[in-house]
Amino acid sequence: MPSSAWLWAASAVALTGHLFCAAAYERTERNCSLTPPYLPSTAVNTSIQLWELRAQMLPLNVSAYIIPGTDAHLSEYIAPRDARMAFMTGFTGSAGTAVVTQTKAALWTDSRYWVQAERQMDCNWELQKDVSVISVAEWLISEVPAGGNIGFDPFLFSLKTQENYAMSLESSNRILKSIPVNLVDQVWKDRPQAPADSLTRLPDRVIQRTWQDKVEQIRSLMRTNPYQPTALLLSALDETAWLFNLRGNDIPYNPFFYSYTLLTLDEIWLFVHTNRVTEELKAYLSASCNGSLCVQLKSYDSVRQNLMTYVAQSDVKVWIGTEYTNYALYELITPQEKLITSSYSPVLTTKAVKDETEERILREAHVRDAVAVIQLLMWLEKVVPAGNVTELRAAEYVNHCRSKQKDNRGPSFETISASGPNAALAHYSPSEGTSRRLTVEEMFLVDSGGQYLDGTTDITRTVHWGTPTDMQKEAFTRVLMGNIEISQTVFPSGTSGVRIEMLGRRALWEVGLNYGHGTGHGVGNYFGVHEWPVGFQSNNIPFKAGMFTSIEPGYYKENDFGIRIEDIAVTVPVHTKFGHNFLTFDTVSLVPYDRKLIDTSLLSAKQLQWLNNYYEMIRRLVGPELDKQGLQEEKDWMLRNTQPFTEAGSSASVCSSSLTLIALVFALLHII
Amino acid sequence: MPSSAWLWAASAVALTGHLFCAAAYERTERNCSLTPPYLPSTAVNTSIQLWELRAQMLPLNVSAYIIPGTDAHLSEYIAPRDARMAFMTGFTGSAGTAVVTQTKAALWTDSRYWVQAERQMDCNWELQKDVSVISVAEWLISEVPAGGNIGFDPFLFSLKTQENYAMSLESSNRILKSIPVNLVDQVWKDRPQAPADSLTRLPDRVIQRTWQDKVEQIRSLMRTNPYQPTALLLSALDETAWLFNLRGNDIPYNPFFYSYTLLTLDEIWLFVHTNRVTEELKAYLSASCNGSLCVQLKSYDSVRQNLMTYVAQSDVKVWIGTEYTNYALYELITPQEKLITSSYSPVLTTKAVKDETEERILREAHVRDAVAVIQLLMWLEKVVPAGNVTELRAAEYVNHCRSKQKDNRGPSFETISASGPNAALAHYSPSEGTSRRLTVEEMFLVDSGGQYLDGTTDITRTVHWGTPTDMQKEAFTRVLMGNIEISQTVFPSGTSGVRIEMLGRRALWEVGLNYGHGTGHGVGNYFGVHEWPVGFQSNNIPFKAGMFTSIEPGYYKENDFGIRIEDIAVTVPVHTKFGHNFLTFDTVSLVPYDRKLIDTSLLSAKQLQWLNNYYEMIRRLVGPELDKQGLQEEKDWMLRNTQPFTEAGSSASVCSSSLTLIALVFALLHII
Repeated sequence: MPSSAWLWAASAVALTGHLFCAAAYERTERNCSLTPPYLPSTAVNTSIQLWELRAQMLPLNVSAYIIPGTDAHLSEYIAPRDARMAFMTGFTGSAGTAVVTQTKAALWTDSRYWVQAERQMDCNWELQKDVSVISVAEWLISEVPAGGNIGFDPFLFSLKTQENYAMSLESSNRILKSIPVNLVDQVWKDRPQAPADSLTRLPDRVIQRTWQDKVEQIRSLMRTNPYQPTALLLSALDETAWLFNLRGNDIPYNPFFYSYTLLTLDEIWLFVHTNRVTEELKAYLSASCNGSLCVQLKSYDSVRQNLMTYVAQSDVKVWIGTEYTNYALYELITPQEKLITSSYSPVLTTKAVKDETEERILREAHVRDAVAVIQLLMWLEKVVPAGNVTELRAAEYVNHCRSKQKDNRGPSFETISASGPNAALAHYSPSEGTSRRLTVEEMFLVDSGGQYLDGTTDITRTVHWGTPTDMQKEAFTRVLMGNIEISQTVFPSGTSGVRIEMLGRRALWEVGLNYGHGTGHGVGNYFGVHEWPVGFQSNNIPFKAGMFTSIEPGYYKENDFGIRIEDIAVTVPVHTKFGHNFLTFDTVSLVPYDRKLIDTSLLSAKQLQWLNNYYEMIRRLVGPELDKQGLQEEKDWMLRNTQPFTEAGSSASVCSSSLTLIALVFALLHII
Repeated sequence: MPSSAWLWAASAVALTGHLFCAAAYERTERNCSLTPPYLPSTAVNTSIQLWELRAQMLPLNVSAYIIPGTDAHLSEYIAPRDARMAFMTGFTGSAGTAVVTQTKAALWTDSRYWVQAERQMDCNWELQKDVSVISVAEWLISEVPAGGNIGFDPFLFSLKTQENYAMSLESSNRILKSIPVNLVDQVWKDRPQAPADSLTRLPDRVIQRTWQDKVEQIRSLMRTNPYQPTALLLSALDETAWLFNLRGNDIPYNPFFYSYTLLTLDEIWLFVHTNRVTEELKAYLSASCNGSLCVQLKSYDSVRQNLMTYVAQSDVKVWIGTEYTNYALYELITPQEKLITSSYSPVLTTKAVKDETEERILREAHVRDAVAVIQLLMWLEKVVPAGNVTELRAAEYVNHCRSKQKDNRGPSFETISASGPNAALAHYSPSEGTSRRLTVEEMFLVDSGGQYLDGTTDITRTVHWGTPTDMQKEAFTRVLMGNIEISQTVFPSGTSGVRIEMLGRRALWEVGLNYGHGTGHGVGNYFGVHEWPVGFQSNNIPFKAGMFTSIEPGYYKENDFGIRIEDIAVTVPVHTKFGHNFLTFDTVSLVPYDRKLIDTSLLSAKQLQWLNNYYEMIRRLVGPELDKQGLQEEKDWMLRNTQPFTEAGSSASVCSSSLTLIALVFALLHII
């Protein structure tokens, strides 16, 4: 699944067009220029919450208040209780920033969400379409007088966000004011409670390193850091979950729980809602002792106070990863010489390299996951021609198939099930209003994944049940060539993904095509489906052996169709003729591609060979699993769809057959 | 020529080994552990300058003084009068930093130069081998007490250098003190004078845009900058040279003159040694009027004073490029809101895209340059077997050949002429002590370039006059494949070079080989041979049509041989099947590669086709030039060396011949 942060440009035109078609008889978007304004039934009345928020702002002398869409852990997905932007604006999209002054209110979101915002917001809100901080800042400068205060909740700002706002605002003499108590929460009366269910520990069978092993491993990295940190502050939710081999259920699709950790060289402070830690877990965490491998449980809400106390000591130095630490904690670490920063904490960089057990079980999870996706594709092939399947039904079906697999813990994100022009929107998910009926006339793209106790999966296949056009076949084949070119490339260990990412685009570039999202993101063992900092972006870390990433080139033709081919692959050492320490990718997603869409004449002999090897691997790994699960029909489908491609279309085969011909000619000449 | 800043790791081992062989009977390096110390005749006695510098430091209360190797314009090459580090240390290498305290003196340089430093420095100096700012800072912290002042000349620090030192030193309570009068200059009695020769203007035949056109073009970029600068400060020497279509001769191999420019929306201040501006040039620059297109000449040394006066006004904002502005000017632009920064000034980014005339004449310069390189290669082929040519002689020969070409203004850098193991050092240049005799037993690498009124050239060819090993052929062919793969790739306009750079390495990576320098740098119309900010580095700007860059993959086998194939290419628009706004490269260097070293069986049909097209282009463009210059022998050599490769080794040709065979078989069958 392409991360939303990677989109260069999302096309709203296709979605707009589609919505108008689906509901031309009733205006689905607000019209604030009418008197009275026209509001669709989907619009939310926000007058009361705005009035109350403004009342909160007044005594604080705050002229404007910024409401970001994230949570205190700068999570990609948020829990309902953190959906403050949605509560204030009515708009439920996953990306946006709201700003409120005493007289105005504005929402900034990107083109994917403009239509949705016009449907969900009432006329208290203006919609701003340039999502840069500069655009928000310019609006603020026009609305707030010089010398005025602009408030923000420092828990919801990354260091970079704060810096960007400060840079734009302070040179114009507007004061950016950190208010560590969230003003929206003060007026959000029915805000969902913090979760109370107990945390769970991972079973031993999916673990190689105990939490004590991991603590020692991280402490040794602290000791060898030349800047000599005395403590490491962990803010991202997967950092604490990884360190203690614990999971929760606080955020949809993500097995995380609200937490921070302060790991010093001789103490461990775990900030968590302590009522969620059972007696058994307390014993597991050695929560009642005092040694360097005893976890001291502290209230989640006390993190600022405790950090302040820690920093007040002499001779302490706190190491943070700047990408995931919020400004509320960062601003406490003063003076400067008590702070040590890296982009990512050593927990995130250590976690990025899987140990033997993690690699093995993540491969295993992908074998079972392939069964579910094969079931979906086989089922669609049978039922689509009858014309009774919608995008939503297909999404439900694959979720259902996954739920029957061992250790499944639900989907890893909202399934993207998109037919025809809907698939041209890279982040489309079907809803009742947009769900198209699947037909043999249109291409279909399904991007889905599962959470399993042993691993997280994410796979995209694009299929056509009728007769694809030449353009569709060419585009699909070139996307596939991109996938293969990255997968089979050999590169030195330590190469950054951004340096090899173009291989995913090159076959498309050759004919003037491209795609507007990134080419891959990390993935791991029962964490978020976008597991940073691995991937092909410029801010990802260099590849070492044992890192899992998606490889997902695509092509999107506006108002027509969308193609994406996504597999998960792991970096593995490779033997080369002359050198050492080189890597390549080993694909662990195991579902065949739609044969009908592959034009083998475009593939090089080497690409065709890769494809046949891959299909042979699917047979070898998924075949026995299908047998075990007694799925004979699925096995037949899989065997049919993984038959080796003959090299007839490729120059290589013509060449080899030409040798036969040469022999024949000579034989004939000899006879004559 | 690979820029020295790109070297990941230079191997000193090969050079060390070689020096010992050449002069085993006499120790060439100092030995400070003996009593008295052993000093070779090449060592420089630095006691007096050290004593005098320390006397300068005392009254300023400076415990340590940092002496970088650059000049006030952060130039890659420096003039003799800026060789302060060499004057103080005796060490004449192109990269290094010296630091002096009252009791110690240390030099930091990278592995390329360790042997040279041991030969040139006396025992006043210790040699430090880790060249990071952190390493210098750690040494400073160990030598300077807390609270002590560490002095530096802000003219010789980039913003980043100052920031790096400040970060490392100030957290340890050492004070970094900017001293805008250089202390070395105070004690350097026979420091070379500033040049007094007149500046020259470019002839009209090499110019499309007058300096007035360029001033208007840059001012329009200032007006459209959203931060509304009122002035642009130009510090890099090629910025002022480009803006006014002027050249000088102040720095070896670089046609620059000492200068700064402050360009405001209605004034132009040119800081220059005004005695070098002739009456004719004054008229050319409209130096006696007062309008917005009149150049006000100001003394070079008055730049700080004038900038201070300018900044003191209200409502001014100065735009600087942070990469080339020195700290002495940067520190004057306060408060913060009077400063606007970008990595590169709009002059450098505008200059990066050549206009039609610049592109045409730069192509023409490469045609004439090819004649000189062909003359060298032909001559070497004839004379090397007799055994009387050294690396130095070859370098002199190619410089001589270039000097006979129209508009030549000398070499664009010191020729790298390297045989056998010497070529394994990517930045080796021959000297009397190291120059090897060329033989048919060894590979030979020659990296050279010329300055011409119409353009700067830079080309590398690697040849073998005897029988190369299989490994040499494979490595050479894979380097060539890298060159071809970059040259023929199609990519969207706006793609950064760093994203396609791996294509230069991929064929090497496949067999576990690699090289330790960058893959290309910009080049232009009679400027420095490394013309920033174009190229394949992460800090280069994205490619647009009309940018010239070198493409120069290589392979270096320590103590054995070195291969580099370097061509200049220009980005040109390319027609694609489906899309618009895509680019590819058009190679403008026009010298054939050594056929003996190409294993065509490794090339794809497409690579072979590129090679044949390239050779056809050499014939078409260089042939007439050789005719015009009456060089028949050279023309025969060129034709011999650009014969099309038959595609016998490639699958493509077998395939096409197989079609004939098929027809033959059918014909025969018919007969039978």
